[in-house]
Amino acid sequence: MEQAAGKTDTVRAARRRKVAGSRQAAASALHLGQLDDHVGYFLRRLQIAIFKDFIRTLAPVDVRPAQYSVLVLITANPGRSQAAIGKTLSIERARLARMLHDLECRKWIERRLSSADGRSHCLFMTAAGNEAMARIESLASQHERQMVKFIGRDLRQLLLDRLRKFGKP
Amino acid sequence: MEQAAGKTDTVRAARRRKVAGSRQAAASALHLGQLDDHVGYFLRRLQIAIFKDFIRTLAPVDVRPAQYSVLVLITANPGRSQAAIGKTLSIERARLARMLHDLECRKWIERRLSSADGRSHCLFMTAAGNEAMARIESLASQHERQMVKFIGRDLRQLLLDRLRKFGKP
Repeated sequence: MEQAAGKTDTVRAARRRKVAGSRQAAASALHLGQLDDHVGYFLRRLQIAIFKDFIRTLAPVDVRPAQYSVLVLITANPGRSQAAIGKTLSIERARLARMLHDLECRKWIERRLSSADGRSHCLFMTAAGNEAMARIESLASQHERQMVKFIGRDLRQLLLDRLRKFGKP
Repeated sequence: MEQAAGKTDTVRAARRRKVAGSRQAAASALHLGQLDDHVGYFLRRLQIAIFKDFIRTLAPVDVRPAQYSVLVLITANPGRSQAAIGKTLSIERARLARMLHDLECRKWIERRLSSADGRSHCLFMTAAGNEAMARIESLASQHERQMVKFIGRDLRQLLLDRLRKFGKP
């Protein structure tokens, strides 16, 4: 009984310390200074939070945001060149080549030499790639629903409406 | 006279080729497919464009966005710990250590052992650092004025008002 009382006291003391600790942390929050006026800072913070959720949600298929954007573009534009995909997404040539190599190794996409221009490659989804995309799109939609909860339906729509023009090909 | 007429024809032909070229480019623009509904995609595109302008504008002082945010926080919160800065900005420990080392090498900041906790470091700007900050802040303000032109005064204010809560400590 005495021991139980002692234990309870310890638990209470730990709780008190925790409360005091979080009070102290709140009291000592840092000032953002000039950062508070930089739109890029807040865009970046929100973008990182959104990408973290995307990566977490699509972890079961091991697809990251840039890979996803490439897969979506190949699906929506079969037979287009590596250069066109890279230009649309502003992905640097060498990085895109590595990403495509990885997607080829997974047998999700294939590169065929262009009949019009023997030096350039046309990109296509494979049957396995299309199958994988069904699951990938389902998880990406789940992520987007989570975004509605995270930032609110209004803000999400507002951002889509106002920011689209900066990311259009 | 004949030569002048020939030159004009060449200019017209070049113009025709240019118009035809941009028509072709427009006709062959890729579809964004599902990306068009992902708020994260458009946030990322705009954020990259903004960071590019920041990096270009602050190139004369060789300060990148993350370095800038650390300098602003140390300036606004002298004597705070490395851990507090890292937590506020969500910068991973090892990366922050490298950044601080670089800023120390430039003699802009100094780390002092905390008197309260001998294991932790307090961060301060040096006199040279404060002097550098005057120029850095001036270029950062120039970047922000460029953002007003780039995305418009209204959208900039809207983003600041609506996104601030996602980047507050």
